[in-house]
Amino acid sequence: MRRKAKKERILTEAVSGEKALGVMRELATDVVSDIEKESFPKITMPSRTTDNIIFDEKTGRYKLGEKVVTRSASNIRHLKPLSQMTWLLTVAADLIETQKTSTLRDVFYMAEGAGDISFEDQGESDKIITDLESVLAFAREDLNIYPEERSAIFGDLDIEYTVKGYEGKKLNLTIHPDGVMIGPALATADFIQTSADKVIAIEKGAMFSRFVEEKAWKRFHAVLIHTAGQAPRSTRKLIRRLSTKLRLPVYLFADADPWGLHICQVIMSGSANAAHIADLVTPNAKWAGVYATDISKYDLPSTKLNDMDIRRLNEISKDVRYQKGRWKKEIEHFFQTKRKAEQEAFSKYGLSFIVDKYLKTRLDELGA
Amino acid sequence: MRRKAKKERILTEAVSGEKALGVMRELATDVVSDIEKESFPKITMPSRTTDNIIFDEKTGRYKLGEKVVTRSASNIRHLKPLSQMTWLLTVAADLIETQKTSTLRDVFYMAEGAGDISFEDQGESDKIITDLESVLAFAREDLNIYPEERSAIFGDLDIEYTVKGYEGKKLNLTIHPDGVMIGPALATADFIQTSADKVIAIEKGAMFSRFVEEKAWKRFHAVLIHTAGQAPRSTRKLIRRLSTKLRLPVYLFADADPWGLHICQVIMSGSANAAHIADLVTPNAKWAGVYATDISKYDLPSTKLNDMDIRRLNEISKDVRYQKGRWKKEIEHFFQTKRKAEQEAFSKYGLSFIVDKYLKTRLDELGA
Repeated sequence: MRRKAKKERILTEAVSGEKALGVMRELATDVVSDIEKESFPKITMPSRTTDNIIFDEKTGRYKLGEKVVTRSASNIRHLKPLSQMTWLLTVAADLIETQKTSTLRDVFYMAEGAGDISFEDQGESDKIITDLESVLAFAREDLNIYPEERSAIFGDLDIEYTVKGYEGKKLNLTIHPDGVMIGPALATADFIQTSADKVIAIEKGAMFSRFVEEKAWKRFHAVLIHTAGQAPRSTRKLIRRLSTKLRLPVYLFADADPWGLHICQVIMSGSANAAHIADLVTPNAKWAGVYATDISKYDLPSTKLNDMDIRRLNEISKDVRYQKGRWKKEIEHFFQTKRKAEQEAFSKYGLSFIVDKYLKTRLDELGA
Repeated sequence: MRRKAKKERILTEAVSGEKALGVMRELATDVVSDIEKESFPKITMPSRTTDNIIFDEKTGRYKLGEKVVTRSASNIRHLKPLSQMTWLLTVAADLIETQKTSTLRDVFYMAEGAGDISFEDQGESDKIITDLESVLAFAREDLNIYPEERSAIFGDLDIEYTVKGYEGKKLNLTIHPDGVMIGPALATADFIQTSADKVIAIEKGAMFSRFVEEKAWKRFHAVLIHTAGQAPRSTRKLIRRLSTKLRLPVYLFADADPWGLHICQVIMSGSANAAHIADLVTPNAKWAGVYATDISKYDLPSTKLNDMDIRRLNEISKDVRYQKGRWKKEIEHFFQTKRKAEQEAFSKYGLSFIVDKYLKTRLDELGA
């Protein structure tokens, strides 16, 4: 059964680019009008200091509080970041208008060609990009600025491109068994139709390939996503769109160690760093494994948690998001056993086991 | 103009799997016949110790010398590695026969389920896999054992899959502007036809996306490959096949630092670790940049070489492969200026410059 997107087509966030452009024009007009009135131009944005980052239990994500900060040209310490931000505004507007994409690293180097506003290092340019995101309440991806990392996707989902040169072209995402990359083109594509009734996101490339090869996508009607470790923001946004626009439940699958837990948690509730961006999270996604308790349950090959693992485990055990239900139980189990295991550990039982037995059982348990 | 592959279709190395299976059966028969004759089974392979790894100037690649080593069941210290290797032989035969792929990591875990032959750590299982490669003179990819890393490809090249479930299906590699992954399916596909007259391999994902977006692939008739840093072996093999089977010249493009040089060099001449595998190298590929001398020529944003860079530069300057022509000149320039630059540094001149000006000029210089 192929399910058509509800309104015939699920619009992409590419539309966001146009919307962002509107907000950017308003902001630029304000700056120009300040100058024309011979007053110091200023830009106001929500504060991103720790005391203004709040975990919102209701929406299940990080968000920013009411505190704001203002950058004013009347303050000599604000002059440089304010100039950098207005420069970035013109760069981003240009990217959207010319339909080009760039990266965080490109922006850093582009500033080198722009004279006196250049950044000390990429840390500084990344920070100004985050500032602009906060001011506009749009993600940098809406401004056509992407990270370097690329993850991948596979499954019975028809998309239609919106990027320049590919407008209107369609692709079914089972076309290439190794998976297609999630870059700017995929991140901005419309969803057309799918027979899938769930999304399974997987930490590791080898497991992603295994799930394709063992036909997990077909047997469990799943769109498969390879997060390539911590999922890049454009991939988190794509997962959210699959969840909200196509109403597909999402299952998350990573190594049984503190890092794997956090890969899943960040897809669900976001990160403190991205508290100013609302549309990156999938709160009702489900953590599907590998659990600490799976290690003994399946007698998996495991290794001892090292000092870094333990430190990380201590950190996340204090995080409000890990203090209930499955998370709490599994973290306690990690502390007791002090063992971790990888997704590939199931290969002990042959290559098919993880799909035939483990995945099937787990999806049943979670009511999928 | 679309150039058809000479013999209508360029056969894949998937055929190698069948050939490897033949060699494996012979080896297994020898072991069994030893046992039946009540003599100790043994396996002989070329030695991979440093004194037997030779850089062959004529073929421009590392190869193994005449020294051999024999593992015999009569030697108690050989018993475990010999058992592990025969176990691996059955695993690999099974992978080929069932048309499944696995990873280095999977093999390590599969051994855990196989009883007494299990490996101490992945280092040990990787070594036995390399041993088996040496014995058989086939790459692990021919045995359906792949690394975890995945790189990507884009360009006007039609391929036909040979993997299970996709046999006979064709794909044109301009289908997805973010690129398609180079995994087991792409690595074993046949080449059908192409309009490209060159291959450009690129270190970084962001530059790969830039080259797609700026239509470098169309303007310069190029198949683009994203190596994702040091190219995985299956990607090096793919580049070699494009070079030898389709007779496409190959241009290599990485950051201007010692690591970037080595990424290019390994594609051309291989690595000492893989001296036992002949078909991974592309000796007539051309290093196309970014050169140390490009930094001053283009007034690129650059940073100081750090201690690790200098150490690496010292190492490679002693390597025979870097002691002539462009390599020698550029390494001397690195030592003089002590500066490095990234591919993205060209963004100083806007996003199109690297394709419009730099790539065009460099390809002209190299007679492309």
